[in-house]
Amino acid sequence: MTATILNGRELAKTMQEEISAEVAAFKARYNVVPTIAVVRAGEDPASVSYGKAIEKAFTGRGMGFALHTLPETATQDEIVALVARLNADPDVHGIMVQEPLPKGVNEAAVKEILSPDKDVDGVHPVNAGRLAQVAPVGRPPMVEPFFVPATPAGGLEILKRYNVSLQGKHAVVVGRSNIVGKPMAMLLLRENATVTICHSQTTDLAAVCRSGDILCAAVGRAKMIKGDWIKPGAVVIDFGVNFVDGQMCGDVDFEAAQEVAGMITPVPGGTGPMTNIMLMRNVLEAAQRQLKEKA
Amino acid sequence: MTATILNGRELAKTMQEEISAEVAAFKARYNVVPTIAVVRAGEDPASVSYGKAIEKAFTGRGMGFALHTLPETATQDEIVALVARLNADPDVHGIMVQEPLPKGVNEAAVKEILSPDKDVDGVHPVNAGRLAQVAPVGRPPMVEPFFVPATPAGGLEILKRYNVSLQGKHAVVVGRSNIVGKPMAMLLLRENATVTICHSQTTDLAAVCRSGDILCAAVGRAKMIKGDWIKPGAVVIDFGVNFVDGQMCGDVDFEAAQEVAGMITPVPGGTGPMTNIMLMRNVLEAAQRQLKEKA
Repeated sequence: MTATILNGRELAKTMQEEISAEVAAFKARYNVVPTIAVVRAGEDPASVSYGKAIEKAFTGRGMGFALHTLPETATQDEIVALVARLNADPDVHGIMVQEPLPKGVNEAAVKEILSPDKDVDGVHPVNAGRLAQVAPVGRPPMVEPFFVPATPAGGLEILKRYNVSLQGKHAVVVGRSNIVGKPMAMLLLRENATVTICHSQTTDLAAVCRSGDILCAAVGRAKMIKGDWIKPGAVVIDFGVNFVDGQMCGDVDFEAAQEVAGMITPVPGGTGPMTNIMLMRNVLEAAQRQLKEKA
Repeated sequence: MTATILNGRELAKTMQEEISAEVAAFKARYNVVPTIAVVRAGEDPASVSYGKAIEKAFTGRGMGFALHTLPETATQDEIVALVARLNADPDVHGIMVQEPLPKGVNEAAVKEILSPDKDVDGVHPVNAGRLAQVAPVGRPPMVEPFFVPATPAGGLEILKRYNVSLQGKHAVVVGRSNIVGKPMAMLLLRENATVTICHSQTTDLAAVCRSGDILCAAVGRAKMIKGDWIKPGAVVIDFGVNFVDGQMCGDVDFEAAQEVAGMITPVPGGTGPMTNIMLMRNVLEAAQRQLKEKA
Protein backbone atom coordinates (compact mmCIF):
# COMPACT_ATOMS: atom_id res chain seq x y z
CA MET A 1 0.00 0.00 0.00
CA THR A 2 1.19 3.52 -0.69
CA ALA A 3 -0.38 6.34 1.27
CA THR A 4 -2.35 9.20 -0.23
CA ILE A 5 -0.21 12.32 0.03
CA LEU A 6 -1.90 15.13 1.97
CA ASN A 7 -0.65 17.95 -0.24
CA GLY A 8 -0.39 21.01 1.97
CA ARG A 9 1.26 23.04 -0.76
CA GLU A 10 -1.66 22.58 -3.18
CA LEU A 11 -4.16 23.20 -0.42
CA ALA A 12 -2.34 26.37 0.61
CA LYS A 13 -2.58 27.65 -2.98
CA THR A 14 -6.32 27.03 -3.04
CA MET A 15 -6.73 28.80 0.28
CA GLN A 16 -4.58 31.74 -0.82
CA GLU A 17 -7.13 32.35 -3.58
CA GLU A 18 -9.96 32.19 -1.08
CA ILE A 19 -8.18 34.61 1.25
CA SER A 20 -7.39 37.03 -1.60
CA ALA A 21 -11.08 37.21 -2.36
CA GLU A 22 -11.97 37.75 1.29
CA VAL A 23 -9.32 40.44 1.67
CA ALA A 24 -10.63 42.23 -1.41
CA ALA A 25 -14.18 42.12 -0.06
CA PHE A 26 -12.98 43.36 3.33
CA LYS A 27 -11.09 46.28 1.78
CA ALA A 28 -14.05 47.20 -0.39
CA ARG A 29 -16.30 47.29 2.63
CA TYR A 30 -14.08 49.00 5.23
CA ASN A 31 -11.33 50.68 3.18
CA VAL A 32 -8.84 49.14 5.62
CA VAL A 33 -5.91 46.79 4.98
CA PRO A 34 -5.85 43.83 7.42
CA THR A 35 -2.42 44.14 8.96
CA ILE A 36 -0.06 42.11 11.11
CA ALA A 37 2.72 43.60 13.23
CA VAL A 38 5.65 41.29 13.89
CA VAL A 39 7.89 42.05 16.86
CA ARG A 40 11.42 40.73 16.98
CA ALA A 41 14.30 41.39 19.36
CA GLY A 42 17.66 40.58 17.83
CA GLU A 43 18.52 38.76 14.62
CA ASP A 44 18.01 35.05 15.28
CA PRO A 45 18.37 33.58 11.76
CA ALA A 46 15.31 31.31 11.97
CA SER A 47 13.19 34.24 13.20
CA VAL A 48 14.49 36.54 10.46
CA SER A 49 13.69 33.92 7.84
CA TYR A 50 10.22 33.25 9.27
CA GLY A 51 9.54 36.98 9.37
CA LYS A 52 10.44 37.29 5.69
CA ALA A 53 8.15 34.39 4.81
CA ILE A 54 5.29 36.09 6.66
CA GLU A 55 5.98 39.38 4.88
CA LYS A 56 5.95 37.70 1.47
CA ALA A 57 2.73 35.80 2.20
CA PHE A 58 0.89 38.85 3.54
CA THR A 59 1.99 41.48 1.03
CA GLY A 60 1.50 38.98 -1.82
CA ARG A 61 -2.20 38.77 -0.98
CA GLY A 62 -2.85 42.45 -0.34
CA MET A 63 -2.54 42.28 3.43
CA GLY A 64 -0.41 44.61 5.56
CA PHE A 65 2.85 43.68 7.25
CA ALA A 66 4.86 45.83 9.66
CA LEU A 67 8.11 44.65 11.21
CA HIS A 68 9.18 46.13 14.53
CA THR A 69 12.70 45.19 15.51
CA LEU A 70 14.43 45.86 18.78
CA PRO A 71 18.08 45.19 19.55
CA GLU A 72 19.05 41.92 21.19
CA THR A 73 19.74 43.98 24.32
CA ALA A 74 16.10 45.10 24.56
CA THR A 75 14.66 45.01 28.08
CA GLN A 76 11.35 43.61 29.17
CA ASP A 77 10.03 47.15 29.68
CA GLU A 78 10.94 48.11 26.13
CA ILE A 79 9.24 45.05 24.66
CA VAL A 80 6.16 45.55 26.82
CA ALA A 81 5.97 49.23 25.83
CA LEU A 82 6.14 48.32 22.13
CA VAL A 83 3.44 45.65 22.43
CA ALA A 84 1.24 48.07 24.41
CA ARG A 85 1.62 50.65 21.64
CA LEU A 86 0.65 48.05 19.01
CA ASN A 87 -2.31 46.92 21.13
CA ALA A 88 -3.59 50.50 21.00
CA ASP A 89 -2.86 51.10 17.31
CA PRO A 90 -6.12 50.83 15.31
CA ASP A 91 -4.15 50.18 12.10
CA VAL A 92 -2.69 46.96 13.56
CA HIS A 93 -5.13 44.03 13.69
CA GLY A 94 -2.82 41.19 14.65
CA ILE A 95 0.44 41.01 16.63
CA MET A 96 3.03 38.24 16.69
CA VAL A 97 5.99 38.40 19.07
CA GLN A 98 8.75 36.20 17.71
CA GLU A 99 10.83 33.96 19.92
CA PRO A 100 13.48 33.75 21.20
CA LEU A 101 13.18 36.81 23.40
CA PRO A 102 16.35 38.26 24.95
CA LYS A 103 17.71 36.50 28.02
CA GLY A 104 16.15 37.68 31.25
CA VAL A 105 12.87 38.69 29.59
CA ASN A 106 9.84 37.02 31.18
CA GLU A 107 8.11 35.39 28.21
CA ALA A 108 4.96 34.65 30.20
CA ALA A 109 4.57 38.33 31.08
CA VAL A 110 5.12 39.41 27.46
CA LYS A 111 2.46 36.94 26.25
CA GLU A 112 -0.01 38.21 28.81
CA ILE A 113 0.48 41.84 27.81
CA LEU A 114 -0.74 41.06 24.28
CA SER A 115 -4.33 42.04 23.63
CA PRO A 116 -6.15 38.68 23.27
CA ASP A 117 -8.11 40.25 20.39
CA LYS A 118 -4.87 40.82 18.45
CA ASP A 119 -3.12 37.62 19.58
CA VAL A 120 -3.34 35.98 16.14
CA ASP A 121 -0.98 33.13 17.01
CA GLY A 122 -3.04 32.13 20.03
CA VAL A 123 -0.24 32.35 22.61
CA HIS A 124 -2.09 34.38 25.27
CA PRO A 125 -3.40 32.14 28.08
CA VAL A 126 -6.91 33.50 27.60
CA ASN A 127 -6.89 32.17 24.02
CA ALA A 128 -5.37 28.85 25.15
CA GLY A 129 -7.99 28.71 27.90
CA ARG A 130 -10.93 29.38 25.59
CA LEU A 131 -9.64 26.61 23.29
CA ALA A 132 -9.35 24.29 26.30
CA GLN A 133 -12.88 25.21 27.45
CA VAL A 134 -14.74 25.37 24.14
CA ALA A 135 -17.62 22.93 23.73
CA PRO A 136 -17.41 20.14 21.11
CA VAL A 137 -18.33 20.96 17.51
CA GLY A 138 -22.03 21.12 16.89
CA ARG A 139 -22.83 22.67 20.27
CA PRO A 140 -22.84 26.36 21.28
CA PRO A 141 -19.19 27.18 22.01
CA MET A 142 -19.82 28.56 25.55
CA VAL A 143 -16.66 30.69 25.33
CA GLU A 144 -15.84 34.04 23.76
CA PRO A 145 -14.23 34.01 20.27
CA PHE A 146 -10.56 32.99 20.30
CA PHE A 147 -7.49 32.39 18.16
CA VAL A 148 -5.78 29.02 17.70
CA PRO A 149 -2.00 28.82 17.02
CA ALA A 150 -1.49 28.75 13.26
CA THR A 151 0.46 25.47 12.99
CA PRO A 152 -2.06 23.11 14.64
CA ALA A 153 -4.91 25.06 13.00
CA GLY A 154 -3.27 24.21 9.66
CA GLY A 155 -3.00 20.54 10.59
CA LEU A 156 -6.70 20.40 11.41
CA GLU A 157 -7.54 22.24 8.19
CA ILE A 158 -5.71 19.56 6.17
CA LEU A 159 -7.69 16.82 7.92
CA LYS A 160 -10.96 18.63 7.24
CA ARG A 161 -10.26 19.49 3.61
CA TYR A 162 -9.32 15.86 2.93
CA ASN A 163 -12.55 14.77 4.63
CA VAL A 164 -10.82 12.70 7.30
CA SER A 165 -13.43 11.57 9.79
CA LEU A 166 -12.36 12.35 13.36
CA GLN A 167 -15.46 11.55 15.40
CA GLY A 168 -14.77 8.63 17.76
CA LYS A 169 -11.37 8.00 16.19
CA HIS A 170 -8.28 7.55 18.33
CA ALA A 171 -5.92 10.45 17.74
CA VAL A 172 -2.40 10.23 19.15
CA VAL A 173 -0.44 13.47 19.48
CA VAL A 174 3.30 13.10 20.07
CA GLY A 175 4.69 16.25 21.67
CA ARG A 176 3.15 18.65 24.16
CA SER A 177 4.41 22.10 23.23
CA ASN A 178 2.12 25.06 23.78
CA ILE A 179 2.33 26.07 20.15
CA VAL A 180 1.64 22.68 18.47
CA GLY A 181 1.08 19.53 20.56
CA LYS A 182 -1.29 20.70 23.26
CA PRO A 183 -3.48 22.94 21.06
CA MET A 184 -3.63 20.16 18.41
CA ALA A 185 -4.86 17.77 21.11
CA MET A 186 -7.55 20.27 22.12
CA LEU A 187 -8.63 20.76 18.49
CA LEU A 188 -8.96 17.00 17.94
CA LEU A 189 -10.88 16.60 21.20
CA ARG A 190 -13.26 19.32 20.09
CA GLU A 191 -13.87 17.29 16.90
CA ASN A 192 -14.91 14.35 19.11
CA ALA A 193 -11.78 12.26 18.67
CA THR A 194 -10.47 10.27 21.63
CA VAL A 195 -7.13 11.94 22.20
CA THR A 196 -3.87 10.63 23.68
CA ILE A 197 -1.02 13.04 24.39
CA CYS A 198 2.48 11.48 24.43
CA HIS A 199 5.87 12.99 25.15
CA SER A 200 9.45 12.25 26.08
CA GLN A 201 8.40 10.44 29.28
CA THR A 202 5.90 8.12 27.58
CA THR A 203 6.49 4.42 28.17
CA ASP A 204 6.59 2.33 24.95
CA LEU A 205 5.94 5.24 22.61
CA ALA A 206 5.99 2.95 19.57
CA ALA A 207 3.02 0.96 20.88
CA VAL A 208 1.05 4.09 21.75
CA CYS A 209 1.69 5.53 18.28
CA ARG A 210 0.53 2.25 16.72
CA SER A 211 -2.82 2.62 18.49
CA GLY A 212 -3.61 5.87 16.66
CA ASP A 213 -6.08 6.10 13.79
CA ILE A 214 -4.71 9.63 13.48
CA LEU A 215 -1.08 10.23 14.38
CA CYS A 216 0.24 13.77 14.82
CA ALA A 217 3.97 14.26 15.29
CA ALA A 218 5.34 17.46 16.83
CA VAL A 219 8.55 16.57 18.59
CA GLY A 220 11.29 18.22 16.52
CA ARG A 221 13.44 15.10 16.10
CA ALA A 222 14.25 13.99 12.56
CA LYS A 223 12.56 10.75 11.45
CA MET A 224 12.01 9.65 15.04
CA ILE A 225 8.70 7.95 14.22
CA LYS A 226 9.39 4.76 12.31
CA GLY A 227 7.27 2.96 9.74
CA ASP A 228 6.38 0.14 12.13
CA TRP A 229 5.14 2.66 14.72
CA ILE A 230 2.22 3.42 12.44
CA LYS A 231 -1.11 1.62 12.41
CA PRO A 232 -1.81 0.33 8.89
CA GLY A 233 -4.11 2.80 7.17
CA ALA A 234 -3.62 5.56 9.76
CA VAL A 235 -3.62 9.25 8.84
CA VAL A 236 -0.27 10.85 9.67
CA ILE A 237 0.18 14.59 10.20
CA ASP A 238 3.84 15.53 10.50
CA PHE A 239 4.57 18.94 12.05
CA GLY A 240 8.32 18.33 12.21
CA VAL A 241 10.76 20.74 10.57
CA ASN A 242 14.24 19.23 10.88
CA PHE A 243 17.36 19.36 8.76
CA VAL A 244 19.59 16.36 8.05
CA ASP A 245 22.60 16.99 5.81
CA GLY A 246 20.97 20.20 4.63
CA GLN A 247 17.76 18.40 3.65
CA MET A 248 14.48 19.27 5.35
CA CYS A 249 12.64 16.33 6.87
CA GLY A 250 9.85 15.72 9.36
CA ASP A 251 9.53 13.86 12.65
CA VAL A 252 8.28 10.81 10.73
CA ASP A 253 10.40 8.48 8.60
CA PHE A 254 8.39 9.35 5.50
CA GLU A 255 9.78 6.69 3.14
CA ALA A 256 8.86 3.84 5.48
CA ALA A 257 5.69 5.48 6.77
CA GLN A 258 4.07 5.99 3.39
CA GLU A 259 4.10 2.20 2.87
CA VAL A 260 1.97 1.73 5.99
CA ALA A 261 -0.15 4.86 6.42
CA GLY A 262 -3.43 5.53 4.64
CA MET A 263 -2.68 9.24 4.27
CA ILE A 264 0.38 11.28 5.16
CA THR A 265 1.71 14.83 4.96
CA PRO A 266 5.13 15.14 3.32
CA VAL A 267 7.87 17.41 4.70
CA PRO A 268 8.36 19.82 3.04
CA GLY A 269 5.00 20.50 1.41
CA GLY A 270 2.64 19.31 4.15
CA THR A 271 1.80 21.23 7.30
CA GLY A 272 4.45 23.93 6.69
CA PRO A 273 2.76 25.79 3.84
CA MET A 274 -0.51 25.80 5.81
CA THR A 275 0.91 27.72 8.78
CA ASN A 276 1.15 31.11 7.08
CA ILE A 277 -2.26 30.59 5.51
CA MET A 278 -3.84 30.07 8.91
CA LEU A 279 -2.00 33.10 10.26
CA MET A 280 -3.45 35.16 7.40
CA ARG A 281 -6.91 33.81 8.17
CA ASN A 282 -6.48 34.74 11.83
CA VAL A 283 -5.38 38.30 10.98
CA LEU A 284 -8.30 38.70 8.60
CA GLU A 285 -10.66 37.43 11.29
CA ALA A 286 -9.10 39.78 13.86
CA ALA A 287 -9.59 42.72 11.51
CA GLN A 288 -13.19 41.68 10.86
CA ARG A 289 -13.93 41.45 14.59
CA GLN A 290 -12.28 44.79 15.34
CA LEU A 291 -14.00 46.64 12.51
CA LYS A 292 -17.38 45.12 13.33
CA GLU A 293 -17.03 46.27 16.93
CA LYS A 294 -16.40 49.80 15.75
CA ALA A 295 -19.36 49.75 13.35
CA MET B 1 -7.13 -9.13 45.16
CA THR B 2 -8.87 -6.35 47.01
CA ALA B 3 -7.88 -2.77 46.26
CA THR B 4 -6.39 -0.37 48.76
CA ILE B 5 -9.03 2.23 49.57
CA LEU B 6 -7.91 5.79 48.84
CA ASN B 7 -9.53 7.36 51.88
CA GLY B 8 -10.38 10.92 50.91
CA ARG B 9 -12.27 11.50 54.15
CA GLU B 10 -9.23 10.71 56.34
CA LEU B 11 -6.95 12.70 54.06
CA ALA B 12 -9.32 15.67 54.18
CA LYS B 13 -9.18 15.58 58.00
CA THR B 14 -5.39 15.65 57.95
CA MET B 15 -5.40 18.52 55.50
CA GLN B 16 -7.97 20.46 57.54
CA GLU B 17 -5.46 20.46 60.39
CA GLU B 18 -2.73 21.70 58.08
CA ILE B 19 -4.97 24.45 56.74
CA SER B 20 -6.06 25.50 60.24
CA ALA B 21 -2.41 26.03 61.14
CA GLU B 22 -1.75 27.99 57.96
CA VAL B 23 -4.84 30.13 58.49
CA ALA B 24 -3.75 30.89 62.05
CA ALA B 25 -0.27 31.87 60.85
CA PHE B 26 -1.77 34.04 58.12
CA LYS B 27 -4.08 35.83 60.56
CA ALA B 28 -1.23 36.39 63.00
CA ARG B 29 0.86 37.94 60.27
CA TYR B 30 -1.69 40.07 58.42
CA ASN B 31 -4.61 40.41 60.85
CA VAL B 32 -6.89 39.46 57.95
CA VAL B 33 -9.37 36.56 57.60
CA PRO B 34 -9.00 34.73 54.25
CA THR B 35 -12.50 34.99 52.84
CA ILE B 36 -14.55 33.50 50.02
CA ALA B 37 -17.60 35.16 48.50
CA VAL B 38 -20.13 32.78 46.97
CA VAL B 39 -22.57 34.17 44.41
CA ARG B 40 -25.82 32.40 43.70
CA ALA B 41 -28.85 33.38 41.64
CA GLY B 42 -31.96 31.48 42.66
CA GLU B 43 -32.41 28.53 44.97
CA ASP B 44 -31.30 25.45 43.04
CA PRO B 45 -31.29 22.77 45.79
CA ALA B 46 -27.87 21.29 44.87
CA SER B 47 -26.33 24.78 44.83
CA VAL B 48 -27.92 25.68 48.17
CA SER B 49 -26.60 22.48 49.70
CA TYR B 50 -23.11 22.96 48.23
CA GLY B 51 -23.09 26.54 49.49
CA LYS B 52 -23.92 25.35 53.01
CA ALA B 53 -21.12 22.76 52.87
CA ILE B 54 -18.65 25.46 51.84
CA GLU B 55 -19.84 27.73 54.65
CA LYS B 56 -19.41 24.96 57.23
CA ALA B 57 -15.94 24.02 55.96
CA PHE B 58 -14.70 27.61 55.87
CA THR B 59 -16.14 28.94 59.12
CA GLY B 60 -15.12 25.71 60.88
CA ARG B 61 -11.48 26.45 60.13
CA GLY B 62 -11.49 30.16 60.90
CA MET B 63 -11.88 31.30 57.30
CA GLY B 64 -14.43 33.84 56.11
CA PHE B 65 -17.56 33.04 54.10
CA ALA B 66 -19.98 35.55 52.57
CA LEU B 67 -23.03 34.46 50.60
CA HIS B 68 -24.44 36.85 48.00
CA THR B 69 -27.79 35.74 46.65
CA LEU B 70 -29.71 37.24 43.80
CA PRO B 71 -33.22 36.28 42.72
CA GLU B 72 -33.68 33.69 39.98
CA THR B 73 -34.81 36.61 37.80
CA ALA B 74 -31.42 38.34 38.08
CA THR B 75 -30.12 39.77 34.81
CA GLN B 76 -26.66 39.46 33.39
CA ASP B 77 -25.97 43.11 34.23
CA GLU B 78 -26.93 42.55 37.87
CA ILE B 79 -24.66 39.50 38.17
CA VAL B 80 -21.78 41.26 36.44
CA ALA B 81 -22.19 44.30 38.69
CA LEU B 82 -22.09 42.11 41.81
CA VAL B 83 -18.98 40.25 40.64
CA ALA B 84 -17.28 43.54 39.74
CA ARG B 85 -18.01 44.84 43.24
CA LEU B 86 -16.53 41.68 44.80
CA ASN B 87 -13.48 41.93 42.49
CA ALA B 88 -12.82 45.37 43.93
CA ASP B 89 -13.52 44.45 47.57
CA PRO B 90 -10.20 44.03 49.44
CA ASP B 91 -11.92 41.95 52.15
CA VAL B 92 -12.86 39.28 49.59
CA HIS B 93 -9.97 37.06 48.46
CA GLY B 94 -11.80 34.42 46.46
CA ILE B 95 -15.04 34.41 44.46
CA MET B 96 -17.13 31.45 43.33
CA VAL B 97 -20.15 31.94 41.09
CA GLN B 98 -22.45 28.96 41.48
CA GLU B 99 -24.19 27.35 38.55
CA PRO B 100 -26.80 27.16 37.20
CA LEU B 101 -27.11 30.83 36.27
CA PRO B 102 -30.53 32.16 35.25
CA LYS B 103 -31.69 31.42 31.71
CA GLY B 104 -30.47 33.95 29.18
CA VAL B 105 -27.35 34.83 31.18
CA ASN B 106 -24.13 34.39 29.17
CA GLU B 107 -22.05 32.12 31.41
CA ALA B 108 -18.87 32.71 29.38
CA ALA B 109 -19.15 36.46 29.90
CA VAL B 110 -19.76 36.05 33.65
CA LYS B 111 -16.67 33.80 33.96
CA GLU B 112 -14.53 36.31 32.12
CA ILE B 113 -15.60 39.19 34.33
CA LEU B 114 -14.15 37.40 37.39
CA SER B 115 -10.74 38.68 38.46
CA PRO B 116 -8.37 35.78 37.63
CA ASP B 117 -6.61 36.50 40.94
CA LYS B 118 -9.84 35.79 42.85
CA ASP B 119 -11.07 32.96 40.60
CA VAL B 120 -10.45 30.27 43.22
CA ASP B 121 -12.33 27.57 41.31
CA GLY B 122 -10.23 28.08 38.18
CA VAL B 123 -13.11 28.73 35.78
CA HIS B 124 -11.73 31.87 34.09
CA PRO B 125 -10.14 31.05 30.71
CA VAL B 126 -6.90 32.72 31.76
CA ASN B 127 -6.57 30.21 34.60
CA ALA B 128 -7.55 27.31 32.31
CA GLY B 129 -5.03 28.62 29.78
CA ARG B 130 -2.18 28.89 32.27
CA LEU B 131 -2.91 25.31 33.37
CA ALA B 132 -2.90 24.21 29.72
CA GLN B 133 0.39 26.06 29.09
CA VAL B 134 2.30 25.34 32.29
CA ALA B 135 5.57 23.42 31.88
CA PRO B 136 5.92 19.89 33.31
CA VAL B 137 6.80 19.51 36.99
CA GLY B 138 10.45 20.05 37.74
CA ARG B 139 10.85 22.84 35.17
CA PRO B 140 10.21 26.59 35.57
CA PRO B 141 6.43 26.98 35.06
CA MET B 142 6.72 29.63 32.29
CA VAL B 143 3.27 30.97 33.17
CA GLU B 144 1.93 33.33 35.80
CA PRO B 145 0.46 31.77 39.00
CA PHE B 146 -2.98 30.23 38.48
CA PHE B 147 -5.84 28.39 40.17
CA VAL B 148 -6.93 24.85 39.32
CA PRO B 149 -10.59 23.78 39.76
CA ALA B 150 -10.96 22.27 43.23
CA THR B 151 -12.33 18.85 42.25
CA PRO B 152 -9.50 17.70 39.93
CA ALA B 153 -6.96 19.37 42.25
CA GLY B 154 -8.34 17.12 45.01
CA GLY B 155 -8.02 14.04 42.80
CA LEU B 156 -4.38 14.81 42.09
CA GLU B 157 -3.74 15.49 45.79
CA ILE B 158 -5.05 12.00 46.64
CA LEU B 159 -2.68 10.45 44.09
CA LYS B 160 0.25 12.42 45.46
CA ARG B 161 -0.44 11.79 49.15
CA TYR B 162 -0.75 8.05 48.44
CA ASN B 163 2.58 8.21 46.56
CA VAL B 164 1.12 6.98 43.28
CA SER B 165 3.80 7.29 40.63
CA LEU B 166 2.51 9.11 37.56
CA GLN B 167 5.63 9.64 35.46
CA GLY B 168 5.38 7.68 32.19
CA LYS B 169 2.16 5.98 33.31
CA HIS B 170 -0.87 5.81 31.06
CA ALA B 171 -3.67 7.87 32.58
CA VAL B 172 -7.15 7.58 31.09
CA VAL B 173 -9.65 10.33 31.88
CA VAL B 174 -13.28 9.57 31.09
CA GLY B 175 -15.22 12.80 30.68
CA ARG B 176 -14.19 16.16 29.28
CA SER B 177 -15.99 18.77 31.35
CA ASN B 178 -14.26 22.09 31.97
CA ILE B 179 -14.52 21.65 35.71
CA VAL B 180 -13.22 18.07 36.07
CA GLY B 181 -12.18 16.01 33.03
CA LYS B 182 -10.12 18.47 31.00
CA PRO B 183 -8.28 20.10 33.93
CA MET B 184 -7.59 16.61 35.40
CA ALA B 185 -6.05 15.60 32.06
CA MET B 186 -3.85 18.71 32.09
CA LEU B 187 -2.75 18.04 35.69
CA LEU B 188 -1.79 14.45 34.85
CA LEU B 189 0.08 15.58 31.74
CA ARG B 190 1.99 18.08 33.83
CA GLU B 191 3.04 15.17 36.08
CA ASN B 192 4.48 13.44 33.00
CA ALA B 193 1.76 10.84 32.56
CA THR B 194 0.72 9.87 29.04
CA VAL B 195 -2.88 11.04 29.00
CA THR B 196 -5.91 9.82 27.05
CA ILE B 197 -9.15 11.81 27.17
CA CYS B 198 -12.33 9.80 26.46
CA HIS B 199 -15.94 10.87 26.21
CA SER B 200 -19.39 9.95 24.98
CA GLN B 201 -18.16 9.62 21.38
CA THR B 202 -15.24 7.29 22.20
CA THR B 203 -15.22 3.99 20.29
CA ASP B 204 -14.86 0.91 22.56
CA LEU B 205 -14.63 2.85 25.78
CA ALA B 206 -14.19 -0.36 27.80
CA ALA B 207 -10.96 -1.22 25.95
CA VAL B 208 -9.59 2.30 26.32
CA CYS B 209 -10.34 2.26 30.06
CA ARG B 210 -8.60 -1.13 30.36
CA SER B 211 -5.42 0.43 28.97
CA GLY B 212 -5.13 2.90 31.86
CA ASP B 213 -2.65 2.48 34.70
CA ILE B 214 -4.57 5.37 36.23
CA LEU B 215 -8.29 5.63 35.49
CA CYS B 216 -10.21 8.80 36.31
CA ALA B 217 -13.98 8.80 35.93
CA ALA B 218 -15.91 12.06 35.61
CA VAL B 219 -18.98 11.34 33.55
CA GLY B 220 -21.87 11.63 35.97
CA ARG B 221 -23.45 8.25 35.18
CA ALA B 222 -23.95 5.84 38.05
CA LYS B 223 -21.72 2.76 37.97
CA MET B 224 -21.09 3.14 34.24
CA ILE B 225 -17.53 1.83 34.50
CA LYS B 226 -17.62 -1.91 35.11
CA GLY B 227 -15.13 -4.11 36.92
CA ASP B 228 -13.86 -5.69 33.70
CA TRP B 229 -13.14 -2.23 32.22
CA ILE B 230 -10.30 -1.87 34.73
CA LYS B 231 -6.73 -2.97 34.20
CA PRO B 232 -5.69 -5.30 37.05
CA GLY B 233 -3.80 -3.26 39.61
CA ALA B 234 -4.85 0.12 38.18
CA VAL B 235 -5.44 3.16 40.38
CA VAL B 236 -9.04 4.36 40.07
CA ILE B 237 -10.13 7.91 40.92
CA ASP B 238 -13.90 8.26 40.86
CA PHE B 239 -15.26 11.81 40.63
CA GLY B 240 -18.86 10.69 40.13
CA VAL B 241 -21.60 11.89 42.45
CA ASN B 242 -24.78 10.03 41.53
CA PHE B 243 -27.80 8.86 43.44
CA VAL B 244 -29.49 5.48 42.94
CA ASP B 245 -32.48 4.75 45.16
CA GLY B 246 -31.38 7.55 47.47
CA GLN B 247 -27.88 6.06 47.84
CA MET B 248 -24.86 8.03 46.68
CA CYS B 249 -22.59 6.20 44.25
CA GLY B 250 -19.82 7.02 41.81
CA ASP B 251 -19.30 6.54 38.08
CA VAL B 252 -17.48 3.27 38.80
CA ASP B 253 -19.11 0.00 39.88
CA PHE B 254 -17.17 0.03 43.15
CA GLU B 255 -18.03 -3.49 44.33
CA ALA B 256 -16.72 -5.10 41.16
CA ALA B 257 -13.89 -2.62 40.64
CA GLN B 258 -12.28 -3.10 44.03
CA GLU B 259 -11.65 -6.76 43.15
CA VAL B 260 -9.58 -5.70 40.12
CA ALA B 261 -8.04 -2.32 40.93
CA GLY B 262 -4.87 -1.80 42.95
CA MET B 263 -6.21 1.33 44.61
CA ILE B 264 -9.62 3.02 44.40
CA THR B 265 -11.50 5.98 45.84
CA PRO B 266 -14.86 5.09 47.38
CA VAL B 267 -18.00 7.20 46.82
CA PRO B 268 -18.83 8.73 49.22
CA GLY B 269 -15.59 9.35 51.10
CA GLY B 270 -13.14 9.63 48.20
CA THR B 271 -12.76 12.67 45.97
CA GLY B 272 -15.80 14.46 47.43
CA PRO B 273 -14.34 15.44 50.82
CA MET B 274 -11.20 16.71 49.08
CA THR B 275 -13.02 19.31 46.98
CA ASN B 276 -13.76 21.76 49.77
CA ILE B 277 -10.24 21.30 51.15
CA MET B 278 -8.72 22.31 47.84
CA LEU B 279 -11.09 25.26 47.62
CA MET B 280 -9.93 26.36 51.06
CA ARG B 281 -6.31 26.00 49.97
CA ASN B 282 -7.00 28.10 46.87
CA VAL B 283 -8.66 30.86 48.92
CA LEU B 284 -5.79 30.87 51.37
CA GLU B 285 -3.32 31.08 48.48
CA ALA B 286 -5.34 33.89 46.87
CA ALA B 287 -5.28 35.83 50.15
CA GLN B 288 -1.53 35.25 50.48
CA ARG B 289 -0.88 36.51 46.96
CA GLN B 290 -3.10 39.55 47.42
CA LEU B 291 -1.62 40.52 50.77
CA LYS B 292 1.94 40.00 49.53
CA GLU B 293 1.28 42.29 46.59
CA LYS B 294 0.09 44.99 48.95
CA ALA B 295 3.09 44.59 51.24
